[in-house]
Amino acid sequence: MSSNSDNSLKAEVDRLRLELQALQISTGVKGITIGKYLLTRLSQLGVRSMFGLPGDFNLGFLDVVDDFPDIDWVGNCNELNAAYAADGYARIKSSSLGVILTTFGVGELSAVNGIAGAFSEMVPVLHIVGVPSTIQQKTKPLLHHTLGDGRFDAYRQAASHFAIKNAAILDKADAAKQIDDLLTACITKARPVYLNLPTDMVNVEISSERLKIPLSHRPPSNPEQEEEFVIELIEERVKEAEGDVVVIVDACVIRHDCREEVKKFLKDTGFPVYATPMGKTAVDENYERYGGIYVGSLTAPLIKEKVESAKLIISIGSLMSDFNTGNFSYNIPKRHHIELHSDHTLVQYGRFDGIGMKNLLPKLTEKLKSFYPVSSQIKVPDYIKQLPQEETSIITHKWFWPRLGFFFKPKDVIVADTGTSNFGILEVPLPANAVMVSQILWGSIGWSVGSCLGAALAAKEVGLNRTILFVGDGSIQLTVQEISVMIRKGLKPIIFILNNKGYTIERMIHGKHRKYNDIADWNWTSLLHTLNDGNKHETASYTVHNKRELNDLLDDESFASASKIQVVEVIMDALDAPLALVRQAEMTGKGNTYGDGS
Amino acid sequence: MSSNSDNSLKAEVDRLRLELQALQISTGVKGITIGKYLLTRLSQLGVRSMFGLPGDFNLGFLDVVDDFPDIDWVGNCNELNAAYAADGYARIKSSSLGVILTTFGVGELSAVNGIAGAFSEMVPVLHIVGVPSTIQQKTKPLLHHTLGDGRFDAYRQAASHFAIKNAAILDKADAAKQIDDLLTACITKARPVYLNLPTDMVNVEISSERLKIPLSHRPPSNPEQEEEFVIELIEERVKEAEGDVVVIVDACVIRHDCREEVKKFLKDTGFPVYATPMGKTAVDENYERYGGIYVGSLTAPLIKEKVESAKLIISIGSLMSDFNTGNFSYNIPKRHHIELHSDHTLVQYGRFDGIGMKNLLPKLTEKLKSFYPVSSQIKVPDYIKQLPQEETSIITHKWFWPRLGFFFKPKDVIVADTGTSNFGILEVPLPANAVMVSQILWGSIGWSVGSCLGAALAAKEVGLNRTILFVGDGSIQLTVQEISVMIRKGLKPIIFILNNKGYTIERMIHGKHRKYNDIADWNWTSLLHTLNDGNKHETASYTVHNKRELNDLLDDESFASASKIQVVEVIMDALDAPLALVRQAEMTGKGNTYGDGS
Repeated sequence: MSSNSDNSLKAEVDRLRLELQALQISTGVKGITIGKYLLTRLSQLGVRSMFGLPGDFNLGFLDVVDDFPDIDWVGNCNELNAAYAADGYARIKSSSLGVILTTFGVGELSAVNGIAGAFSEMVPVLHIVGVPSTIQQKTKPLLHHTLGDGRFDAYRQAASHFAIKNAAILDKADAAKQIDDLLTACITKARPVYLNLPTDMVNVEISSERLKIPLSHRPPSNPEQEEEFVIELIEERVKEAEGDVVVIVDACVIRHDCREEVKKFLKDTGFPVYATPMGKTAVDENYERYGGIYVGSLTAPLIKEKVESAKLIISIGSLMSDFNTGNFSYNIPKRHHIELHSDHTLVQYGRFDGIGMKNLLPKLTEKLKSFYPVSSQIKVPDYIKQLPQEETSIITHKWFWPRLGFFFKPKDVIVADTGTSNFGILEVPLPANAVMVSQILWGSIGWSVGSCLGAALAAKEVGLNRTILFVGDGSIQLTVQEISVMIRKGLKPIIFILNNKGYTIERMIHGKHRKYNDIADWNWTSLLHTLNDGNKHETASYTVHNKRELNDLLDDESFASASKIQVVEVIMDALDAPLALVRQAEMTGKGNTYGDGS
Repeated sequence: MSSNSDNSLKAEVDRLRLELQALQISTGVKGITIGKYLLTRLSQLGVRSMFGLPGDFNLGFLDVVDDFPDIDWVGNCNELNAAYAADGYARIKSSSLGVILTTFGVGELSAVNGIAGAFSEMVPVLHIVGVPSTIQQKTKPLLHHTLGDGRFDAYRQAASHFAIKNAAILDKADAAKQIDDLLTACITKARPVYLNLPTDMVNVEISSERLKIPLSHRPPSNPEQEEEFVIELIEERVKEAEGDVVVIVDACVIRHDCREEVKKFLKDTGFPVYATPMGKTAVDENYERYGGIYVGSLTAPLIKEKVESAKLIISIGSLMSDFNTGNFSYNIPKRHHIELHSDHTLVQYGRFDGIGMKNLLPKLTEKLKSFYPVSSQIKVPDYIKQLPQEETSIITHKWFWPRLGFFFKPKDVIVADTGTSNFGILEVPLPANAVMVSQILWGSIGWSVGSCLGAALAAKEVGLNRTILFVGDGSIQLTVQEISVMIRKGLKPIIFILNNKGYTIERMIHGKHRKYNDIADWNWTSLLHTLNDGNKHETASYTVHNKRELNDLLDDESFASASKIQVVEVIMDALDAPLALVRQAEMTGKGNTYGDGS
């Protein structure tokens, strides 16, 4: 039995022990308040920062947070931004989770889009909401922050559409178990969960016994016989393909924390590997067997040919959304396709529920490593940085992204907003251990600003390098205030604002010259000054109008050292966009059947 | 039969005609697209501005908006702010509604808090969401902006908790009727409604016949016999009280558009009148029979005595929320109390469903005007502006609000955020035809900034005077970017930012010295410069540190003329607050049973 399977069994044993203890322990043995219990659990799971805003039903819990040494309170400017920050934090701290605290109604409802985005993109986020006391929830007085009609449960009902699990602490008897179950769902399913914490439950004492057994991230082990069957089946297919296998890594490798398992699988088998847009940086992009991005019909011709001509394609953690697949244009027949998912496996036309990739991969590695001598000989196209030569001095997308490729360093954290940024960055090979985060499925513009705050904090906690944000001038206007929190927290991201005078991604889809795609043209270089905290922090802002100015800035060591927070306004043409976006947007516009209105 | 009742009957006849026509008319007679039908209805209802953001499922409808001459598209910075703006617009255009347009998922969900606030506070807002085509809604591809699990209806389900009615246009056959029913619910119930508009339905042709009959605001007429009974009952009670009656006007007078009916009622009966916090400016505050604000135990002693000692109290449009009643501390026995509501009437212990105030008031006026000789002799305390003398040069709340009272002019629109602002403004008598809007029940901080944008646009449309915003430095950070839209639209509000270094309202409730109530201290006087649109607009910013500086500014005619957008940063103490807030917050903090944690 492999050590991996041991781990899974051990996790299950721990879970059973917890249940047993809950039954055995009479309350009162070694007391801890519910508020502290929750924080202790979060601390055990590696949470060091908590996002959100104070509001009159969460102030008592905030006292507990304020007094709790392990977790730092990050007061955000608004709740949507706080949710985005928790999302960004969770994406970087891949074995932990993001936490946001809001207040009843007015606070929590502002965060809904951010939480729904974390649901869609599979990011583990805990949303704690401070709510009226258990007494008030029964008597239902006409309190402020209510709908005025006594429906105290409406917010929770609305939230339940965007949480994999939700709970309300109404009784101390099962409070600890409720918290544990909620957190376990969050981290094992990589989806948001929602918790109502009434004002009068925060300081109620419960037993602390359960805290002795940590919560486990590991998914349950796969049923043994079925797993063996699936492994044999896959081995047969690889044999038939004579080792001519291509691997495609995708979003869920990152979300379900399988990077290490995938790395070993690739190294031991020698299979060539490509990534989807959402799978970018799931495998180090300087890995010698990595060939670049596969995105259906939008793929570069050489990569497309290599992937689609393989006799067998193994997709790991795939998420086949429109923008992640070139509008569903994969040219991979089912009979040549194997898909490993977090909780099931597909082998050609067969589906095997309950066979999850995290436990399957190590065993599959053992079985398939014999193909190394053959598979490691399959040629992979070079995925290298190349700067195109252009006549124009204007900063084009075609030039900008490759140029930035030479600016990135190992362990950089790169955050790209939806729009020209998350399409442009796709074509740039990133250095070793660089991490890229973007929101290709949910695609909420403005997300990157809050997310950058969370990512930068997490990067600091886990020892990554610079945090670099790419965001359009339209997108940043949705969430701009959160930059002030970056400043206040002493973070030093480099923020590239692509000033193309409006919503270029929308222009590409529809309404190229319509005024509804225009926005106000802000004075971007005075933004950091305005948002500074009593001018206590050093900041720098630049505008680059052409290639020379951008080159000079990127080559400046003081700039590149990111020793202070910096904004770079990059002047670009309103109708310029990365090729991948232009082609994707055309297809999206057609799907929307708008007819010819632009 | 009074002309009022005639109006109601006529409205019902119109509604029946509409139904009849819908049955009679074969589609295709005088065609109009669904998009234009909707806009024409909105135009008929007085809508001249529409708020929101472009997104890839609403761009086709935006073409129709862009080409429609009667309605101006106000592109907002984000959806929450757009919802707040639609709310502010509807509050000022009291016989119309506010409209916000967003996109599927990522757009609409950001607006939820703003829409829920409009629900709670009874403001008519239409939320139009551009959604995927009817075909995509059936085939459910893994589109961007979806949850990734095929639940295309999750957003509508979540929205239904915060809308009095919702609809999705999926078929042209009943599209016009669906739109009419939705808008009728919105304007007669003064609550938000929600509409899904698929991309492929926007340009589908339907009959335009229904447009000939306008939609009616008027509520249905009251059942005649029961109404007569209630009027006689109330007359008896007034007789018993020997005309010793006090009227309290509240929020729903404003929300259900009964200002005119109330005005005549008061003038003809001579009854003295007071307002609740949410009813402020329902009656002109310079009306000679107006005595000021009644808010339960927090009322000024003289007013409290006058109200509570009356033999009969008639509340009109009351909304008894915690912050609107001094934490439920009305000292009015039920046997002395009559309440007129939008759809029912309470006479002492008796409840009469279906008897609404808008139709009842004119008849009641006729019946009770005979009491004028007696009732008009009841003394009303003077509600006049008084500036307290203070030693300190610091700007205190005690001094600030009365001082501003001397700055206000007739027809000014005053917007006050939740916190020190909406409590402070309560004690200031406002000039004739001045309108004040605040959000006392919902209480979402930051609401006022978006709302101010909508209010300023509406004020311009209906010929009101200056728009003046009061907002704390904590609150404005939630929604600050919307000021750029004010600038871009050429609006010229005066924005008072009360800089008290954080969330003072929370400090009053709990955590006086806790750091979670601190915020970043921005450079407020550079804000307008940063948010300007290519420096095309004139702006001015000031900081006032003491009474003299504020006096000088307020006395400056150029400043007071509001000929450009202006920001005034008012330096105040972090722990200073209006007395009413201090006392309300104490009661709220106790209700939350936090114990002693501050």
